[in-house]
This record gives sequence, C-alpha cells and structure tokens, in this order.
Amino acid sequence: MRDTTVNYAPVDAAGLCAILAGLPDVRTRLGGEPAGWRVREVGDGNLNLVFIVEGPAGGLVVKQALPYVRLVGESWPLPLERSWFEYNALIEQARYAPRLVPKVFHFDRTLAMIVMEYLSPHVIMRKGLIRGIEYPRFAADIAEFLAATLFNTSVFAGTAAAHKRRIELFARNVELCRITEDLVFTDPYREAPLNRWTSPHLDADKRAFEADSALKVAAQARKCQFLTEAQALIHGDLHTGSIMLTPEDTRVIDAEFAFVGPMGFDVGAVIGNLLLAYFAQEGHEEAPHARDAYRAWILDQVVAVWTDFHNRFLTLWRQAKESEAYVKDLFTSPQDRSALDAERIRFLRSLFEDTLAFGGLKMIRRILGLAHVEDLESIANPARRAICERKALRLARTLVVDGAKFSAVADVVEAARRHAAN
Amino acid sequence: MRDTTVNYAPVDAAGLCAILAGLPDVRTRLGGEPAGWRVREVGDGNLNLVFIVEGPAGGLVVKQALPYVRLVGESWPLPLERSWFEYNALIEQARYAPRLVPKVFHFDRTLAMIVMEYLSPHVIMRKGLIRGIEYPRFAADIAEFLAATLFNTSVFAGTAAAHKRRIELFARNVELCRITEDLVFTDPYREAPLNRWTSPHLDADKRAFEADSALKVAAQARKCQFLTEAQALIHGDLHTGSIMLTPEDTRVIDAEFAFVGPMGFDVGAVIGNLLLAYFAQEGHEEAPHARDAYRAWILDQVVAVWTDFHNRFLTLWRQAKESEAYVKDLFTSPQDRSALDAERIRFLRSLFEDTLAFGGLKMIRRILGLAHVEDLESIANPARRAICERKALRLARTLVVDGAKFSAVADVVEAARRHAAN
Repeated sequence: MRDTTVNYAPVDAAGLCAILAGLPDVRTRLGGEPAGWRVREVGDGNLNLVFIVEGPAGGLVVKQALPYVRLVGESWPLPLERSWFEYNALIEQARYAPRLVPKVFHFDRTLAMIVMEYLSPHVIMRKGLIRGIEYPRFAADIAEFLAATLFNTSVFAGTAAAHKRRIELFARNVELCRITEDLVFTDPYREAPLNRWTSPHLDADKRAFEADSALKVAAQARKCQFLTEAQALIHGDLHTGSIMLTPEDTRVIDAEFAFVGPMGFDVGAVIGNLLLAYFAQEGHEEAPHARDAYRAWILDQVVAVWTDFHNRFLTLWRQAKESEAYVKDLFTSPQDRSALDAERIRFLRSLFEDTLAFGGLKMIRRILGLAHVEDLESIANPARRAICERKALRLARTLVVDGAKFSAVADVVEAARRHAAN
Repeated sequence: MRDTTVNYAPVDAAGLCAILAGLPDVRTRLGGEPAGWRVREVGDGNLNLVFIVEGPAGGLVVKQALPYVRLVGESWPLPLERSWFEYNALIEQARYAPRLVPKVFHFDRTLAMIVMEYLSPHVIMRKGLIRGIEYPRFAADIAEFLAATLFNTSVFAGTAAAHKRRIELFARNVELCRITEDLVFTDPYREAPLNRWTSPHLDADKRAFEADSALKVAAQARKCQFLTEAQALIHGDLHTGSIMLTPEDTRVIDAEFAFVGPMGFDVGAVIGNLLLAYFAQEGHEEAPHARDAYRAWILDQVVAVWTDFHNRFLTLWRQAKESEAYVKDLFTSPQDRSALDAERIRFLRSLFEDTLAFGGLKMIRRILGLAHVEDLESIANPARRAICERKALRLARTLVVDGAKFSAVADVVEAARRHAAN
C-alpha cells in the first residue's frame, strides 16, 4: 500500500483556504477571494475533521481523515488511507445512485481529504428522527440507494473481472472493517473495556447477553459472513447518522467503511437504526402516546424501506441484460424463467434474514457497546432511557437469533409494537 | 498488475539448462555439468510446458506457463501471471501441509516458471485409478491436505488482515477463475461450441440437462457462491489429475487455479473425481464384476476422504488458539462450548452439501463440457462409455439438486451403488 502519511498534516482554516485557492474549479465554485471565505470545523463524528467553506458564490464541504479515532483519542490510531476507500466508494455509488450521494469535487490522497458538495439545508436524519420529523421521500430514496448500489456492484450485474477488481481494491480497507468486526460482532457480548451501557439499570441485561450462548453463536456466525461473503460493495456504516436529508432530498454520506461484503449489512443498518429511533420515541414524548403518530410513521418506513428495496432489487435483476451469476441465456423457456424467478425470490428471502440479523446486531452494539446513538443518549433520565433500551434489546435479540421465524417485514413491525407495548 | 510478458519466451531444453546452470542451488541439486543434464518435455496438461531435468545428483521439474490454452491453441490466450498465483499457492500450502506438496526450489516471474521437486516414482492418481491400483495412504493424506490448507487459510485460523491479504492477492487470478466459471458452471448446460459428449448415445441426456430448470438454477447458484464466497485459499482444480502419488506418498500439484473461494469446491473436486473413476470401472473391467473389489475400494475412499476431512477439520477448529470468527473467549461456559460445537457441526453439514453440489457439477462438466477425463475417455467403445457416463450423470444431478437429502456420506456411496447397478 502507498505510504501517504509522509506529507500529511491536519489542516486548519488558513491552510485549507490556501489549498482550495489552488484548485481552479473549487475556487470558482466558492467565488470571490480566499480571504473572504468563511471556514467552520463542524465534525461531530468519530474519525474526521469536517469543514464547511463558504464563499460569495457557494459553499462546499471538506472532509479530512485524522490518523486516530477522534472519539477515543490518539491512543487508537487509524489509517488515513480510509479516505481513499471513501473516495472510491463515493465514485462507485455515484455511478449507480448519482442523485443520492454528495458530489465529489476534488480528492487529495496525500492529505486524505475529500472536497465535496455542501448539503444544505440537509440535516443528519438521526437528529430529525429525534425531533419527530417525517421525511416523505426517505424510504423510496434509501431503498433506491440500496437497490442500485448493491445490485450493480454484485455479480448479478457486470463482469466477474469487475467484481474481483472491487474486491481487490477494498480488501485493503482492513482497519475500518476491523472496527466493525470488533465493535459490532464481538465486544458487546463480552467484558470489553470500552463497552458502555445504562448502568445499573441494564447491568442484568448486559450480563444475560454475555451468557447467551445462542446469541453469541449467531453473532459470530454473522461475523464470519461479514468476513467472507463478498456479495457487493457495501457502504458499511449506513445508520441514520450517515444519511442527510430534507423533505425533498436524501443523501448518503461517510462511506469510509466501504468494502465488498454482505448486502444485508447495509439494509440491516438502515432498518436497525429506524427501530432504535422507534424505541427511543418513548423517551422523547412529553406525555404517553404523544408520539404515537410518529412511531407509526417510523414503522411504516421500516416496511417501506424493505418492501421498496425488495421490489427495486428484483426489478433490476429481472431487467438485467447480462450477469455472471444466473447467466441469462441459460433460462429461456417459460419453465426456466419461472425457476429463475423463484430463485431470485429465494435469494431475497435469504437477504431478508441477513438484514434482520445484521440489523439486530447493530441495535445491540449501540446499547451495550462503545458507540451509542443520540436517539437514546439524548434521553436524559437513565431509568426512562433504560426502558427504551431494554425493549430494543429484546427485539434485537429475536432478529438475530430467530430471523427465520419472521415471514415478512410486517411481522417485524408487529413484533416491535408488541415489545414497545410491554 | 506487473507486465511480466515483455521478456517472456517459452524455453527449450538448451535454454532451460542455461537458466538452471545460473542457479547455484539448483545446479548443485542436479550435479555434474549442464551439458550432461537430460531434459524431457512431458507436459500432458492443458496449459503449460513441463520439463523433467535430470543430472548425476538428482532431478527436478520445471513448469513454465504458456500464454495460451494448450488444449485449444493460441486462439485462447491465458495470462502468464497464473504462474505467480501457483507459486504463491504452493508456498501457502507448504506452510500447512509441507509433506503433501512438491518443494519449490526457484521461481522466475518473468519467465512464468517454477522449478520444483521431481516426484518419482509418483504417478498421476487418475492413471492409477484407471489401472485399478489401491493407494493405502491416499484418503488420509488428501483429507489432511484439505483440512490443513482450508482450515488454516480461513477466518477460523489467523487474522482478518491476513485473510484480506490473501483475498487481495488472489483476486487478480481472474482469467483462471473465469475458465472454471464458464466450463464448470455454465457451458455444460447450454449449446457451447467447445462442448463434447459421447454422441449420439448421450444426445438426449445432453438435451435433457439443457432443459433442466432446477439443475440450471442449482448450477448457477453454485457459480454465484464460487464468485462471492471468500472462505479459504482453495486449490481450485483438485481433481485426481492434480494428485501424484505412490502407495507411500501423496502430493498435490498444479495450483494455478488457486484463489480465495468456497472450501467445498476443493473437497467436491476430490469426491466428484473419485465417483467418476468409480463409474468408469465398468468400462475397464475385462468381465462383469471383475473390478468389484476395486469399485468397493473407490467408494471406501469417498467415505474415508469426507469422514477424515470432517474429523481433522473439526479437530483443528476445536484446538485453534485464536480466530477471527467465533472468537474463543466468548465461549467459556459449558453451555457456550456446547453451542459453539453445535455450530461447528452445522458449518460442516453445510460444507458437506457444498461438497456434494460442487462434486456433482465437476462430474457433469467432465462428461458434457470441454475437458473430459481419461477415466472415461479411455473406454474405447462409445456405447460402453456412454453407459458409464449416463450413470455418473444421474448421480451427479442428484448431488447438485438434492444434496440436502443425503444425511451422510454413506448415503452418497449407497446412491452411487444403486446407480451403478441399474
């Protein structure tokens, strides 16, 4: 791998303006003179510097990787090279879902820095979910993103050679994958120094999960799948904090965890985080039932995301001209076509179970692991928060261990309602 | 990828001696003066030049890749780089099964040439099977090779980073994988110009397979698995022509198809080719039942290979100190350990079904596709050959479509006996 660290340094506002001033397209986009540009560092994530730069003609965002995990500090180093993977993922996603990712204006591999579209007035979806805002385009947009990116970067579209090139490129994104391997699949189920949970309220729940053989086996089987199933280029961190939107527009950001992995990991991330938002509502409402309508909206989104994703993926597959897997010219008779379509439905059923399991695991790690979500963290009263979290944990466990028992996404939503009501 | 073709040229005997004379270790190994070395080109495979070089002190083998498929001619180009993958696979296999692969003395990437141990008096196993020779060490040796190489190059052993490095390196072995993708999973099930079969005897069988929707779906589902399941570094072409042995010693050769793929592809290759040898016996025996004892021996090997592989793999897994998947320190209580062991058994059951399906597919491609096997081809009478082939095809189809119905390897052997008797 290229050593890109030699000339790297984190930028400050003045240094950043000097760099941007040297890029003619970017300079035109901002307009005016660099001295008049307004620069704000707004990174609230765990891993990067994020600047908003605004000039008289327009704004843009600059994301620069830091060589360590910001949340933990310099004791947890993290390769700058992840910026290269994010850039490549953005380019690939833009090929198939151009409307749904930020435009990239410039990439500097040495500085691990991406200059891209400033999304305004978009907000991080998670914050909207906490405030109880409905996004009418969200479900269809995210389903389109998922179907378009996952289908088109799989062996159901394109050539084996293209797939192997993707696998090769992203196989080097080792360290970011390792974060997921540890924090999602392993640490929540053992005593790990960085775990946190609402204590003492959930102490017994945490201990029960640590002793839950069936759950641990299921979690580790999914880890194995995450490590070996090279189905498609996945975003790798597609929670509601990686979605920025307005009522009219939806964008997926922060693809540095991208690699060729199991499709269900992305779909599950969306659905798992919607379910976390659902269970968190009880902690945010001013009076019991005050947010019932919004709760129902969230569950409608769970159904809509899966259903719309399923249908779009199926349509893409049925309409695909050529593919490496299920070579089209083998299936020409009516009987062939019907058998092939049954196989597609079987694949999507299997993907549904993957989705539930990965979704459940991502819910659990946000309650018992290192990195939590604002949906729940912002519930100030720990007893109240713990009630929400416990309900979420119980559904999540069922999704991980018993996904095969859900015959459709409507059953998942029904189970969520049941857990919320208890 | 490095362009290694610029200074490449196929060697001849004189050129080869000059090259070997320049390698001090190799020169010592051969002994004497280069002028006295005896060089024979013995390649009978499809893709390479193979020289045996003998001097007063000893012999060695030189395998040089040709830039095209020898069986078809220069119209089918094939990258020399496959030699690099073979070399890397040999090195990796030698790490875990040193006793079971030829020693490598020298590798020349520019000339796409591996200088390695001369195996003598070893014969290609397929030839031994045709002659009816029993190899008492074969089953245990090949089971050891399979278990050691597949386990140790998986995420059940070693780190995720090491696994991703393997994936990255071998993801470039695109063209050799493509041969398998086309010739094993696709072409036998359609009208492909290079297909051959015993005609007209098997014309109806060939047509029936082309119209067999369930079989085609199953074959293409396995192709999808072959393209996406990065389980372990597999040999990729482990038929009985890739095994050289004596009654006392077993070696696996010809690893140029190696990449990180599904384990069952290797185990299935061994078992599928044993079953081909089994069905071919009827075409080789001088009188009915003359080879009954040998037939029984072959079926015993099918049982022994799977059973021994299964047990060795399980033992390696149980004894593994650390692994990325199924992290050991999550499973400490008796209940944990029992759940984990049940999961291992479940994994091996799934691998058993993979093995049967891949084995069946490899049987079919040898009867209806481009490359056939000497076991069957050497049956001169086409009517007699077709009888053997039809029986093999029928069992193979069952293995591909209905593998889940075999509760154990003994059932497979029983089914083989039934098909042979009909």
